[in-house]
Amino acid sequence: MNANEKFIAADAHVDQAAIQPLPNSRKIYVTGSRADLRVPMREISQADTDTAFGGEKNPPIYVYDCSGPYSDPQAAIDIRQGLPALRAQWIAERGDCEALGDLSSDFGRVRAADPALDELRFPGLQRRPLRARNGANVSQMHYARRGLITPEMEYVAIRENNNRRAYVEQLKASGAQGERFAEILCRQHAGNSFGASIPDEITAEFVRSEVARGRAIIPCNINHPESEPMIIGRNFLTKINANIGNSALGSSIQEEVEKMTWSIRWGGDTVMDLSTGKNIHETREWIIRNSPVPIGTVPIYQALEKVNGKAEELTWEIFRDTLIEQAEQGVDYFTIHAGVLLRYVPLTASRLTGIVSRGGSIMAKWCLAHHRESFLYTHFEEICAIMKAYDVAFSLGDGLRPGSIYDANDAAQLGELKTLGELTDVAWKHDVQVMIEGPGHVPMHMIKENMDLQLEQCKEAPFYTLGPLTTDIAPGYDHITSGIGAAMIGWFGTAMLCYVTPKEHLGLPDKDDVKVGIITYKLAAHASDLAKGHPGAQIRDNALSKARFEFRWEDQFNLGLDPDKAREFHDETLPKESAKVAHFCSMCGPHFCSMKITQEVREYAAAQGVSEAQALSKGMEAKAIEFVKAGAEVYRKV
Amino acid sequence: MNANEKFIAADAHVDQAAIQPLPNSRKIYVTGSRADLRVPMREISQADTDTAFGGEKNPPIYVYDCSGPYSDPQAAIDIRQGLPALRAQWIAERGDCEALGDLSSDFGRVRAADPALDELRFPGLQRRPLRARNGANVSQMHYARRGLITPEMEYVAIRENNNRRAYVEQLKASGAQGERFAEILCRQHAGNSFGASIPDEITAEFVRSEVARGRAIIPCNINHPESEPMIIGRNFLTKINANIGNSALGSSIQEEVEKMTWSIRWGGDTVMDLSTGKNIHETREWIIRNSPVPIGTVPIYQALEKVNGKAEELTWEIFRDTLIEQAEQGVDYFTIHAGVLLRYVPLTASRLTGIVSRGGSIMAKWCLAHHRESFLYTHFEEICAIMKAYDVAFSLGDGLRPGSIYDANDAAQLGELKTLGELTDVAWKHDVQVMIEGPGHVPMHMIKENMDLQLEQCKEAPFYTLGPLTTDIAPGYDHITSGIGAAMIGWFGTAMLCYVTPKEHLGLPDKDDVKVGIITYKLAAHASDLAKGHPGAQIRDNALSKARFEFRWEDQFNLGLDPDKAREFHDETLPKESAKVAHFCSMCGPHFCSMKITQEVREYAAAQGVSEAQALSKGMEAKAIEFVKAGAEVYRKV
Repeated sequence: MNANEKFIAADAHVDQAAIQPLPNSRKIYVTGSRADLRVPMREISQADTDTAFGGEKNPPIYVYDCSGPYSDPQAAIDIRQGLPALRAQWIAERGDCEALGDLSSDFGRVRAADPALDELRFPGLQRRPLRARNGANVSQMHYARRGLITPEMEYVAIRENNNRRAYVEQLKASGAQGERFAEILCRQHAGNSFGASIPDEITAEFVRSEVARGRAIIPCNINHPESEPMIIGRNFLTKINANIGNSALGSSIQEEVEKMTWSIRWGGDTVMDLSTGKNIHETREWIIRNSPVPIGTVPIYQALEKVNGKAEELTWEIFRDTLIEQAEQGVDYFTIHAGVLLRYVPLTASRLTGIVSRGGSIMAKWCLAHHRESFLYTHFEEICAIMKAYDVAFSLGDGLRPGSIYDANDAAQLGELKTLGELTDVAWKHDVQVMIEGPGHVPMHMIKENMDLQLEQCKEAPFYTLGPLTTDIAPGYDHITSGIGAAMIGWFGTAMLCYVTPKEHLGLPDKDDVKVGIITYKLAAHASDLAKGHPGAQIRDNALSKARFEFRWEDQFNLGLDPDKAREFHDETLPKESAKVAHFCSMCGPHFCSMKITQEVREYAAAQGVSEAQALSKGMEAKAIEFVKAGAEVYRKV
Repeated sequence: MNANEKFIAADAHVDQAAIQPLPNSRKIYVTGSRADLRVPMREISQADTDTAFGGEKNPPIYVYDCSGPYSDPQAAIDIRQGLPALRAQWIAERGDCEALGDLSSDFGRVRAADPALDELRFPGLQRRPLRARNGANVSQMHYARRGLITPEMEYVAIRENNNRRAYVEQLKASGAQGERFAEILCRQHAGNSFGASIPDEITAEFVRSEVARGRAIIPCNINHPESEPMIIGRNFLTKINANIGNSALGSSIQEEVEKMTWSIRWGGDTVMDLSTGKNIHETREWIIRNSPVPIGTVPIYQALEKVNGKAEELTWEIFRDTLIEQAEQGVDYFTIHAGVLLRYVPLTASRLTGIVSRGGSIMAKWCLAHHRESFLYTHFEEICAIMKAYDVAFSLGDGLRPGSIYDANDAAQLGELKTLGELTDVAWKHDVQVMIEGPGHVPMHMIKENMDLQLEQCKEAPFYTLGPLTTDIAPGYDHITSGIGAAMIGWFGTAMLCYVTPKEHLGLPDKDDVKVGIITYKLAAHASDLAKGHPGAQIRDNALSKARFEFRWEDQFNLGLDPDKAREFHDETLPKESAKVAHFCSMCGPHFCSMKITQEVREYAAAQGVSEAQALSKGMEAKAIEFVKAGAEVYRKV
């Protein structure tokens, strides 16, 4: 089961399936104010509309791209070497950190010196770990509060805008057809953002101000220079996280790296390595060195391994060493369950499913064993000092989240949330970036209460929720029970949605499960953005729907979140290439295709001199009436 | 592709996979006021709790059961014979209908006389068609308005209650443990039903009053005596519909019957036969004779086949003959797109995706061709006369529903909805049962407007929605994009959710797709019921969560909507039978299992004389504090 024994670093390679560009897609880069600030986007080209429908030349569509260099055919991918350190120069230029002579953590040094691990160890360049110079603070929040716009901030601003303004201007400048495309593609329903403050265009200064006030975070450890900056906050695109990681019962380093590359291919904005099995340290090194997205961890998992699984034997010293070990590897955010206070634990006794957070149950056990507050809480300011020395962001863990509908929104959960709000203030005092983890299992009508309380008590620090699952009765389908809750809470203001796979509650997800989980959460996050009225969010929907209406099958597949699956489903009944240009599909067949019939109606209109372009364009009601009259007359003549 | 040629009626049989009882499940019947009124339910037995956790004897759980005789090992299943006519006596007793000498529809008689169809034709007993005696009205609404409680009404009352009162009383009478079970299982969050009027217990009189005022329908054609009555209304459990049916491009009669039995096995409350391919008439006969759930159709599809797909050649006479043909076969509800008025068609000209309802586009084409209102609208009262002669319910079709986010909630859609409200009044004038179809593609923040307008304009006639899909960008995952919208609109008051399968927009669903669509919609409907606070809805969640917490793996699988899938996922990483009693799963392994750790904490407490039972029961905060104190002391001694 555990393939670690067979894993040989020298043979490590990434799955070819994870490094092919997606169909009809090309990676482009938008350059910012400096030559080394190149922001990736994915361009999806489209076919021309069939001449029967006007033969328009459809413009390409640009979408947010998490996949890093893997989907760039120009990039040389060798996971034994890791990714280029694109941020190294930006970090160095700030002049506030130093390269250490050796790892600062005891455990890190022991692992580095162990020859038995040579075969497993990441074989690429070992950079010297960076740390803030004495007394310095290298967090993006610190820079933001001092009024500095970092390259990271500029990067995320460009990334969030998806180059929309230039794109639309270019379209409009290209003539009447382009103007019409711009109008159709950019038309969007006014959303309801429940008091968010989403600007029409994201500026670097807006990013800075949001990070400064704690309403968004840019997780980017100075020891993870390979990462492409991204932002998490309610006024930005809703993000998703994919969990990977081995357990004592399965998966190897190679598999975990593959899950990471696979996750980002399908749209994972961040990846959490939740490994609890063997060689956690080495697995993490491989993942970080090859990850263009922020990596999060739950350091208490590894600390527990160090005391052979005996929660009560955990100490601040072991935990502190683990934080430093991971910070120097480059982990971008740490889940820290510092809100599990002694007084909340009894509140879980009347629960149906007790404490279901692994970290929460470990800390509860520790608290009970020692009958005092956990070292996470009592040493919280020392943790902040570590976080700011590397720019690791907090993900304040919801150790007391409900594990069943029965336990939703109970006193233990809401008590902890209040404490997380207090800890947010402490972290902010240190200019340390913070997001807050949220539930869990919550019926639909109780979801908004979670969001409202979080916004109030944590002062709009980004919320990062797991689901929530809206019912307990569908094991095997919890990506869906939770995707419902995720879409809703994302709409209400959650900044990042932690995915749930179909294997939730049942087993360790494999690559297929990871993909299904990610696509489900991408669509939920996107549904949130549409409902919030996030500027430009509807472009992709509009483009895909236009392709659908015009029977551009290939474009319909390619504009979707999972072109491979869409094509596979289509081809099950109509596998022939000619079916890809057919004006119907197997659902209805040619006679019953409503879109085909509608097209026919429009053709009659067009024959009468009312162009489809005119008929389609906005505000053409007068023409539309003419169109019917014209159409009706045509029919009458017959 | 089309296997009809190979289909031989004499060889027809149902897939064995569709007639096995679900694991640990037994069909029970609750008898009503007369011996022939036996309402099926599914009893799921549970294992005892592990002795390490107290060794409790967990009671069985009862769930709503749509699967008909197929899941009853006592029943002799032969699809060539069809199901027993369980309602025949009730219908006959009312004395208001007559058995006709022959079929009343021309088309029906032609098909019946065609020897070329002998091989295909349903070979079981051909009952003489029933029709209301001259001037009579055999609709459930008519009886309800006259103050009659029919056996059908009593049946659905028993069915909706799921025998909960007797179950809870029995539990409570069985001693302290039973009392505790009753408390845990029945604990439920107060919901938010947005003004619904859901009683704590459904009485037959309540059913009658809801049907009388049009707020619920019981679709049960007098020519479908095989059907087990069910009710659709916002004050009842949220229902789901599964669409099946062949197209010109695929599927045979045998496959369609299998899809029906497969659909109801997984929870389809009604099934729509949307066949547009060959032998529609014969396919429908097979389906109805074997269906214990109401069957819906869209008669215009078959009418269109009769004019070789030329919409403009449709006539009232052809349509009328089709209605009678299908009504005499036993179709329980008809989708009729009578709201597609001439003046709404031009409003679709500025749409991105035009008219996407097949029925809507057919009628729009007819209207344009003839430049007058459709025969569905102009002959609406004559249609009502047919409906009441057989008790076919209207499903007033939303021919102008939006086919993209772009087109959501536009003037065409909302104009049609208003007309459907007016037609509801006309139908009600004839005491004909009505539900209203709804969209479609709608972003989350615009869903509630649909529900609110429908409730107002259609005076709480049941809403029956397709999804809605909350984004267009995920072809291949539209069961999920729509499951999100379905759960929400169900919460807001939609009475029945029409499923969407993963193949939506791409192809004809196969059996796997049908199952995934159904499970997705069952969980969405259930999430709606939880959010509405439907009495007893949370019992199954509570039971499953208790099983999960106690590591009763088999019970966790069996209480879920899809035991097979849950077991399969679990077994992928831990296939051994011994793993089914393990106190952990492959997600975390033994060390990191939060539930295991929580159990350990409770065990310490139990060792100090605070029983788990006490600790778990509601309102035990004082005990909980004692529990921690006790637990803490234990740990201190170590």
